[in-house]
Amino acid sequence: MESLKKRILDEGRVVSEEVLKVDSFLNHQLDIELFQDIGKEFYDRFKDKNITRILTIEASGIAIASIAAMYFKVPVVFAKKTESRNLDKETYKSVVYSFTKEKYYDIQVSKRYIHKGDNVLILDDFLANGKAALALIDLVEQAQANVSGVGIVIEKGFQNGGNKLREAGVNLESLVIVDRFKHGKITFIN
Amino acid sequence: MESLKKRILDEGRVVSEEVLKVDSFLNHQLDIELFQDIGKEFYDRFKDKNITRILTIEASGIAIASIAAMYFKVPVVFAKKTESRNLDKETYKSVVYSFTKEKYYDIQVSKRYIHKGDNVLILDDFLANGKAALALIDLVEQAQANVSGVGIVIEKGFQNGGNKLREAGVNLESLVIVDRFKHGKITFIN
Repeated sequence: MESLKKRILDEGRVVSEEVLKVDSFLNHQLDIELFQDIGKEFYDRFKDKNITRILTIEASGIAIASIAAMYFKVPVVFAKKTESRNLDKETYKSVVYSFTKEKYYDIQVSKRYIHKGDNVLILDDFLANGKAALALIDLVEQAQANVSGVGIVIEKGFQNGGNKLREAGVNLESLVIVDRFKHGKITFIN
Repeated sequence: MESLKKRILDEGRVVSEEVLKVDSFLNHQLDIELFQDIGKEFYDRFKDKNITRILTIEASGIAIASIAAMYFKVPVVFAKKTESRNLDKETYKSVVYSFTKEKYYDIQVSKRYIHKGDNVLILDDFLANGKAALALIDLVEQAQANVSGVGIVIEKGFQNGGNKLREAGVNLESLVIVDRFKHGKITFIN
């Protein structure tokens, strides 16, 4: 996706060999016009999968999933990371290790909002080691629903999440795949 | 907004005199078609304010802000609740007390993404005691930007957030205002 690559090259800030900040348009300030292009692109790639529901995880995935859902015309469900008094007691639950935050946390979805037989598209902003994506897949499988695809905006090709998912037979579509950031430079694998 | 009232009456679950769950369409599962109507409604109410930026707070506010931003054609910025290694060091910071989670937490926005002179529209799903809205207003004022309006999907008219904001001269628009849930019943004030 060329418009996305251009934004990453223009505004991405390489913080270390492994960390790319794209918070000017993707995950702190959100460029909604770009998100519409991203949503259309996901729709093009998954439109023949009869998607019935989009699943993501708070917080940065919510905007991507919500805009994409306009094209698929299906509801979004987002997994919650924190305990809330207002969350249903009956939930599907999984565990994620966050390298960014250096801790384990639970993610949960109310059993009301993923149904047996649903064709679920999982969307998120980044794929690195794949921990969050695998936990979301776990939630879908607990619900006896189908993982119809995983759509990622930026995959870090030098971490093993992408390979893990592909080897597991997941239909993974990453809009861009970046290589390790050597000497502060951004290069793309796809 | 009649379509919203109907959804609240049809699907809202009254959990106590003060708690209404609307997680089937507003803040866990998201009905994006309804969100488009909500976004248009906010646009109608604030379109003459020359909005340059929409500010919200993670997580439930993000979807509302993102869909509304399509109509305003401005970027969204969402305040973050948790420390992240990837957040800029230079942030505007404020403190919120959450009655739902029974704790204080910091919210932060990078100084890069709210500018002096910006006309900021603050959007969120619920207004109860107003703590989150006041903290967002604080962030905008720290940036020497203008609070051009606050748009809320559901205001709890029996808590004092709405009055606090109106008394402070804030241009507050709540799409619906609900009264205390006596005997499990939902009634609207506006």
